[in-house]
Amino acid sequence: MQDMNIKKVSSHELGQKLDMNPAQIRKDLAYFGEFGRKGIGYEVSYLISKIKEILKINRHINVGLVGAGHLGIALSNYNRFTREKLSIAAIFDADPNKWGMSVGHLKVQPVSELQETVKEKDIKMGIITVPATEAQKVVDQLIAAGVTAILNFAPATLKVPSHVHLRNADLTTELQSLAYYVD
Amino acid sequence: MQDMNIKKVSSHELGQKLDMNPAQIRKDLAYFGEFGRKGIGYEVSYLISKIKEILKINRHINVGLVGAGHLGIALSNYNRFTREKLSIAAIFDADPNKWGMSVGHLKVQPVSELQETVKEKDIKMGIITVPATEAQKVVDQLIAAGVTAILNFAPATLKVPSHVHLRNADLTTELQSLAYYVD
Repeated sequence: MQDMNIKKVSSHELGQKLDMNPAQIRKDLAYFGEFGRKGIGYEVSYLISKIKEILKINRHINVGLVGAGHLGIALSNYNRFTREKLSIAAIFDADPNKWGMSVGHLKVQPVSELQETVKEKDIKMGIITVPATEAQKVVDQLIAAGVTAILNFAPATLKVPSHVHLRNADLTTELQSLAYYVD
Repeated sequence: MQDMNIKKVSSHELGQKLDMNPAQIRKDLAYFGEFGRKGIGYEVSYLISKIKEILKINRHINVGLVGAGHLGIALSNYNRFTREKLSIAAIFDADPNKWGMSVGHLKVQPVSELQETVKEKDIKMGIITVPATEAQKVVDQLIAAGVTAILNFAPATLKVPSHVHLRNADLTTELQSLAYYVD
């Protein structure tokens, strides 16, 4: 709506777009404060900024990526095109042949530099795109460097301490859900 | 459990592993038939085959991928390592420089061969890993070739007719959900 230069939106319009009950939308948003006005609705840009605040995505976060293979490079490129405040600030790989290789504006660094770079660049999140056999070693190194939020693309079950938030991204899940609809 | 050579499992054990109420698990499964026996539980391999049948993932499905960039290549490689019955059977790209390039056991084909190859290889699903500006054209071509289930990685909002199932895979969503947990 912001892209379309729409300034105001009612809970009714939001309900139609989201296929949700407008009363539920008003109730949910009211839980976090008074964002709208009766009979007028919500100011789009204000609502966006408030939702970003609620979801804590109003901050710039530096991300460190380990594994400069095809997926790692794709994610680095992908990320640059989004408007989101997440940016890949460093890329690491264990393979000496990849050290110094350019990926966007970054150069691939040895994993041995991980700890120092995480501190230097204030990296708060990690992405793992290494082979499954290497993933536990890498997650341990990220945690040792102080990273507490990790997105793992390696098809491996990783162990992390309870203060660390680990998400496993499984690209086959999406395909499998779609498979249901194939005749 | 099958990997660990476990033959039987009770709804109680399943409940613990899934953090769900055992009675709910029994009820949900009973909805699809009598899979278990009172006091004995479920036979693991039989339960797996039944769940695959319910989710319709017990069939081999050929997938066509359009876009032989880093993400496309990563997905092709990724897919080869899964046990799932989804296999990328053809890769297409619009760039003549990529035609004939080897990706795993496949060679990148021109998009002009899409229609013919989809029929020839009985491709039922499509994956789109092209730039956003090309995505609508590609989705139209896949649909024209008869594909009705499509996973789109391009950051674009695509229009499809109602008989087509489109899923948009947004790699930033996972990162954003994690961002919530960054201090």
